[in-house]
Amino acid sequence: MSGNSFGHLFRITTWGESHGGGVGVVIDGCPPRIPISADEIQYELDRRRPGQSRITTPRQEEDRVQILSGVFEGMTLGTPISMMVLNKDTKAEDYAPFKETFRPSHADYTYQQKYGIRNWQGGGRSSARETVGRVAAGALAKKILKEKCGVKILAYVKQIHSIACSMDTTFLTHEKIESNIVRCPDPATAEKMIQLIEDTRKKGDSLGGIIEAIAQGVPVGLGNPVFDKLEAELAKAVMSLPATKGYEIGSGFEGTLMTGSQHNDAFYMEEGKVRTKTNRSGGVQGGISNGEDIVIRVAFKPTATIRQIQETVTSEGDQTLLSAPGRHDPCVLPRAVPMVEAMMALVLVDHYLLQRAQCG
Amino acid sequence: MSGNSFGHLFRITTWGESHGGGVGVVIDGCPPRIPISADEIQYELDRRRPGQSRITTPRQEEDRVQILSGVFEGMTLGTPISMMVLNKDTKAEDYAPFKETFRPSHADYTYQQKYGIRNWQGGGRSSARETVGRVAAGALAKKILKEKCGVKILAYVKQIHSIACSMDTTFLTHEKIESNIVRCPDPATAEKMIQLIEDTRKKGDSLGGIIEAIAQGVPVGLGNPVFDKLEAELAKAVMSLPATKGYEIGSGFEGTLMTGSQHNDAFYMEEGKVRTKTNRSGGVQGGISNGEDIVIRVAFKPTATIRQIQETVTSEGDQTLLSAPGRHDPCVLPRAVPMVEAMMALVLVDHYLLQRAQCG
Amino acid sequence: MSGNSFGHLFRITTWGESHGGGVGVVIDGCPPRIPISADEIQYELDRRRPGQSRITTPRQEEDRVQILSGVFEGMTLGTPISMMVLNKDTKAEDYAPFKETFRPSHADYTYQQKYGIRNWQGGGRSSARETVGRVAAGALAKKILKEKCGVKILAYVKQIHSIACSMDTTFLTHEKIESNIVRCPDPATAEKMIQLIEDTRKKGDSLGGIIEAIAQGVPVGLGNPVFDKLEAELAKAVMSLPATKGYEIGSGFEGTLMTGSQHNDAFYMEEGKVRTKTNRSGGVQGGISNGEDIVIRVAFKPTATIRQIQETVTSEGDQTLLSAPGRHDPCVLPRAVPMVEAMMALVLVDHYLLQRAQCG
Amino acid sequence: MSGNSFGHLFRITTWGESHGGGVGVVIDGCPPRIPISADEIQYELDRRRPGQSRITTPRQEEDRVQILSGVFEGMTLGTPISMMVLNKDTKAEDYAPFKETFRPSHADYTYQQKYGIRNWQGGGRSSARETVGRVAAGALAKKILKEKCGVKILAYVKQIHSIACSMDTTFLTHEKIESNIVRCPDPATAEKMIQLIEDTRKKGDSLGGIIEAIAQGVPVGLGNPVFDKLEAELAKAVMSLPATKGYEIGSGFEGTLMTGSQHNDAFYMEEGKVRTKTNRSGGVQGGISNGEDIVIRVAFKPTATIRQIQETVTSEGDQTLLSAPGRHDPCVLPRAVPMVEAMMALVLVDHYLLQRAQCG
Repeated sequence: MSGNSFGHLFRITTWGESHGGGVGVVIDGCPPRIPISADEIQYELDRRRPGQSRITTPRQEEDRVQILSGVFEGMTLGTPISMMVLNKDTKAEDYAPFKETFRPSHADYTYQQKYGIRNWQGGGRSSARETVGRVAAGALAKKILKEKCGVKILAYVKQIHSIACSMDTTFLTHEKIESNIVRCPDPATAEKMIQLIEDTRKKGDSLGGIIEAIAQGVPVGLGNPVFDKLEAELAKAVMSLPATKGYEIGSGFEGTLMTGSQHNDAFYMEEGKVRTKTNRSGGVQGGISNGEDIVIRVAFKPTATIRQIQETVTSEGDQTLLSAPGRHDPCVLPRAVPMVEAMMALVLVDHYLLQRAQCG
Repeated sequence: MSGNSFGHLFRITTWGESHGGGVGVVIDGCPPRIPISADEIQYELDRRRPGQSRITTPRQEEDRVQILSGVFEGMTLGTPISMMVLNKDTKAEDYAPFKETFRPSHADYTYQQKYGIRNWQGGGRSSARETVGRVAAGALAKKILKEKCGVKILAYVKQIHSIACSMDTTFLTHEKIESNIVRCPDPATAEKMIQLIEDTRKKGDSLGGIIEAIAQGVPVGLGNPVFDKLEAELAKAVMSLPATKGYEIGSGFEGTLMTGSQHNDAFYMEEGKVRTKTNRSGGVQGGISNGEDIVIRVAFKPTATIRQIQETVTSEGDQTLLSAPGRHDPCVLPRAVPMVEAMMALVLVDHYLLQRAQCG
Repeated sequence: MSGNSFGHLFRITTWGESHGGGVGVVIDGCPPRIPISADEIQYELDRRRPGQSRITTPRQEEDRVQILSGVFEGMTLGTPISMMVLNKDTKAEDYAPFKETFRPSHADYTYQQKYGIRNWQGGGRSSARETVGRVAAGALAKKILKEKCGVKILAYVKQIHSIACSMDTTFLTHEKIESNIVRCPDPATAEKMIQLIEDTRKKGDSLGGIIEAIAQGVPVGLGNPVFDKLEAELAKAVMSLPATKGYEIGSGFEGTLMTGSQHNDAFYMEEGKVRTKTNRSGGVQGGISNGEDIVIRVAFKPTATIRQIQETVTSEGDQTLLSAPGRHDPCVLPRAVPMVEAMMALVLVDHYLLQRAQCG
Repeated sequence: MSGNSFGHLFRITTWGESHGGGVGVVIDGCPPRIPISADEIQYELDRRRPGQSRITTPRQEEDRVQILSGVFEGMTLGTPISMMVLNKDTKAEDYAPFKETFRPSHADYTYQQKYGIRNWQGGGRSSARETVGRVAAGALAKKILKEKCGVKILAYVKQIHSIACSMDTTFLTHEKIESNIVRCPDPATAEKMIQLIEDTRKKGDSLGGIIEAIAQGVPVGLGNPVFDKLEAELAKAVMSLPATKGYEIGSGFEGTLMTGSQHNDAFYMEEGKVRTKTNRSGGVQGGISNGEDIVIRVAFKPTATIRQIQETVTSEGDQTLLSAPGRHDPCVLPRAVPMVEAMMALVLVDHYLLQRAQCG
C-alpha cells in the first residue's frame, strides 16, 4: 500500500537507505521445499554490485548476503525469507553539499516535499542501492521458475546512447551477455559501448540506453486480465526501477507504423502446439502469456548525477550552481541488467502461483 | 488479486462481458460529500461509446449509466458506488465463427487455455467493452481531482500510423480535442488521420498509433517509492488497456539519445515555487510528482480484428483461414482517448488519497 | 482497503444501501468451470430474506437475484461474477424520525461523524440488508467447497437469551436446522425460543443469542500463519456481521478454566490418518486446519431497534426521546444463520485457493 | 496475501523462526517525522522478553533491538523501518524429540502437513518468539497514537484459570499493571495468580486465562464498514496471536443474556460531545469508533507445552508417549499483555491513517 512491497502471492518488501545500517528484503509467499543457497543469491548480487568494473561507480561494497530466516537445511520453509546486506563503504561526508541543494533530475526535491524530511546521504531510499533486495529476491524467483517450469530469463544491453546492437536473439545466452563488462552480447558493439562510456565519464557526463529482456519457456496462461495483464504487471515492475523512462512489449512503438494485416501474428500448429509465425505480440495476448518468448524493452535515461556544473536551487529557494562529487555510474545499464531480469522473474513467478491457485 | 480491481485507496472493480447482461464497476474508497451526477458520468461514456462517429464500430449502444448505490441526494456517501450499463445491441450470432477458431492476435486462444472455457460472443471479458466501468469510474476520479486540487487531465491522438501531430501542447484544451471525431487537436492533421482511417477500413485493414496524455496542476508529492512510483503506477494503468504495446514518460525512448548534461532538468525559482526549465522528467522525479505537467505517451497496436483473410488454427488444432465479420473499430485510438484519461485520473486520485494518509 | 472487500484470492466486494437502487456483490477470483445456477444462489437468499416467517421483520422483499456476468451456459468463466438484488419494498418515510435523531446502539451517530453525511433511510449501508451480497457469494463458495473437497458447512441457533440448546452436533443436518423458523435443530428448544421471541416482540423489546457453526471435511493445511491464521480469518469474517459482540473457536472462553493436561488434544491414528481424541482446538492448530471439524461460536447482541421509548440526542445536540417505528427483527439470529455459514464458506474457499497456490 | 503481513496503510511484515538467525519486522507506511528511539522499542520488548521473571520461561534472550532503516537522526523518514533481534540462547538439541513426534495441541503436525517441511527447533515459525516483530512495531504504533491523537492503550491480566480480577478499570494505569510480574493491576488477585502459576508449573502442567485491553481517547470515526469494521479488525488482530481461543468486545457473550432495552447505550450530551451512559457497545457502533473507551477481552488457552506425559503419534504414524523437556512458559498471559497492546495499537494507527485518507 505504501509502496515498498511488490507482488501478490510471491510478495517482496524491500527496506534500506544508501547510507543506513543496510538494505534488505523480506519475501512472503515463497513455496516450501525449494532448494536455495546463499551462493545462488550472491551470484546475482555480484552482477549488480558497485565497483565491479571500470565502467561502474568506484564505491566498494562486497554486498555479502545473509539469509536470516525462511530457509532450513538448504530448503525454503514456506515462511518469510529475510535477506540482508550491510552497508560498508559509506561516505556520508561526500553528500554534504546535497543536504541543502537539490540535484537536478534527482529525487532530492520531491522526497523533501513529500516527506518533509530526507536522508540526504547518498540519495537515501532513492538510491539504486535499494535494488539489492529486488535482485536477491529475483535470484530466488529465477530458481523457482527454472525448477518448476523451465523458464529462462535473459536481459542484455541493446543500446547505449546511439550505439545499438541488432543481433538475432535466437542464440542469446547468459554466457554471451556476461562475456564483457557492459553486458552486450555482441562483442564488437560492446567494445564501442565501453569506449563511449569511458569517454563520457572523462567529460563528467553520463549516458542512457535500452535494455531488452526475454523470457523463454513461459507456460501458456499467465497473467490476470483486466488490470493485472502480464504486460501491465511487467510495465509496472520495470518502470519502478530507478532511471526508467519507457517500456514496450513485442512490436512496441514501432508497431504503430504497421497495419493490422501486417501486424497480426498468424497461428499455426507445431508439434501439436499452437504457435505464432511472428511474435509482434511479444508473447502476450489479451494480457495472458501465449507460450512464445516474452520480449520487453526498457529505456533508461542518462544518469542524473554528473560532474559537470549545473544550475539548481537550494532548499531555502536560492539559485545556485552544483557539481556533483561523490561516486556514481556514468551509465547505469550494465548494472541494471540483473535488475530487469529480477523484476521480470518476480512478475512471472507471482503469476505462476496465481495461475496455480485460480485455474490449477 | 485476481486482476479485476485497480487502485489502493480509491479502488475500482470492473465486471462484465461483451455479450452478457451488462458491464459495470464498483468504486470503493471514494471520499464522501463529492457532488456527482449521472450526467457527468454519461458525458465521458459518450466519448467512449461505440457508434459515435463514422470511424468507429457501428455497434449501437446507448451505454446509459445507472448509479445503484453510494450516492445520495447528489453527493457521494463514502460507501461503495455501483454503476452499471446494460448490454443491448448484442449480436452473438456474428461471433459463431470464433467459437471454434482463434482470431490472430486476439485473446481467444489464451483465454481458452487459461480458463478452459470462454464466452466467445464478442470477445467476452477481453472485449474493449470492459472499459465502460473504467471510464465511468474515471469520470468520478476527474471530478474529485478538479474539486480537491484543480488537476486537469487531457489526452489526445498524437499519431495514427505515420501521420503525427507535432503541436505545442501549451494551449491544448478539451474543446480542441473534442472538435473532431479523431480527437487530434490539430485540425489539418486530424483531417488526414480521418481520411487514412476511412481508406484503411475500406481495405478491410486497421491502424494503430500513439496517444499523449497530460496532467496539469498536479500537487508535488504524489507517488509511493519504491514500487508504486507514479510513473510505474501510470505504466501499469495504461498498459492494462486493450491493444497497448508501449508506454513512456517525459523524454521516453528519445531521451536515451541525450547525455546527462543535456537531459537533466535545471531547477529555478518562479513565484516562490521550485520549477524546472525543461520537463524531460515528465513531471515525476524519483517516482514522485514534482509539480510540472505529467506527460505520458501510449502506443496502441492496429486493431486485431480485420476483414482481410488470415491464417489461423481451430481449437481442434486444424489449420484454417478466417475473415472476421462482426462490427469493429478500424482504429481504436479515438475511443481510447477517454480511457487513457480515465486511467490517469484513477492513478492520480488514488495517490492523492495515499499522500493525504501518509504525509497529511 | 476501504472496507467493502473481503478475501484474498476469492475476493468479494459488496455494495448497496437499504433504500438505494439495490444491493449486490462482485466476486473476483472464482475458479472457472464451476457449475452454478441462479436457483442455488436464490436458495440461500431465501433463508436470509426478510418476511420469511412470523418472527422476522415484516418488510417484504423477494430478493430475486440476477447474475449479470461471469457465468456462461451454467458455468463460471473465471471472470468477475456480478450479482444483484433490487430494492423494492422500501419505505423511506418510516425513517424520517431518524434523519435528525440518533438511534441508540445503532450506526447513525458514527456514520454521521465519520462521513459527514449518511443515507438515513433504513440504516443505509449499515443495514443488515448489506449482507445480501455476502450470502449470494457464500452460496457460490459453498458450492465450490462441496465440489472440490467435499466440505460441508452447518450453522444453527444454539442460544436465544437464556434458552440454550445442548444437543450433540454429531448428527446435525441441514434438514434439522431448517425444520423450524428459528433454525435450532432441537425441536423442543426451538419451540421455547420462538415463544420467547414472540413475547418479546409484543413488549417492543428484542433478544440476542449465540450461533454455532461447524465445517466438516475440511482438508488439513488451510490457514496462513502468522496473521492470516484460520481462526483469525474466521474471527474477522463473522465479527464483520452486524450485531456481533463475541467469537470463539473450539474450547473458547470455557477453555481458560482447564489446565494444559486437561485441554490438550491427544493425537491418535485412525484408518491411517492422524486424528485427535478431543477437539478443544476446534479444528485448527497453529492457525492451520488439522482435519477435525472446525467449530466456532458467535455472540449476537439484542437488536438495537426497539419500539420501547429510549433516551437519545439529535444531530443538533439536543436531548430527546425516541420510539422506533419501522419494520425490524425482534431477534436477528434466525436470519443470521445463512450469514454465518456464508462467511465461513468464504474464508474456507479463499484458503483452499491460497493453499493450492503456495503448497500445491 | 501469504499471511505474514498485517495492516493496510501502516503495514507490518514479520519474519523469523525461533531458532534461525533472528526475528524481525519491516514497517511500511509509517508517517514521516515521528520521533522514535531504540529505547522506546526496547521498553516494550523487555515486557515481552523470556526470562523476565520466575513465572516465565527460563530461556535467556536479551532481545536487543537494532533499527536498520527508516529512521534518521531520531525521526522516521516515511520509508520502511526494518527492526531486528538476533537469536542467541537457542538450544536446538532440546527439541530433537519433536523432530519426529508431534506435540499435542501444537503446530507441529499442521505445519508438517501444510508445508511438507518444518523447522522443528523450538517451534520454528509457530513459536511465540515470532511476536517480537509485532511488539516492536506496536511500540511505534503506540507512539504515533500518543503523539497524533492522545490515544492510550492498556491491557492487563483479568483472569488466570478461575482466579478473576474484578476491579473498576476507570483508574487503571500502566504503573499498576507493571507493579507485579503477572500484570494484574489488583495486588491481592495478582498474588493468588502468581501462586497458582508456580504451583501448576511444579506439577508440570499449565494455565490459560483472559486479558482485557482498553483504548482510551480514540477519535470518533475509526473503522471501515462493512468488512473492516473496527471490531472485526481487532478480532483478527488478537486472534492471530498464539494460543488465543476467544474474543469479545463490550458486552460480549454476556450481552446475549440482556434484552435490547437493557443493552442499548443511551446517548446524552456532555461538554458539547455526544456520549453514551453505558458502554455495552465497547466503544464501537456499526463498526466505527464512537469516542468511548474501546474494551476487548481475549481468551488464551493453557500452554500446550507441558512436562506431564501425553499420548501422541510420530510422523511415521506410530502411537507414542511424550513428555516435553525444553523451556516454556507455564502460562503465557503475563508476556502476552504487551502483545495484545501491540495488536490493538497496530489496528488503531492503521485506521487513523485510513480515516485521514478517506474522510480527511
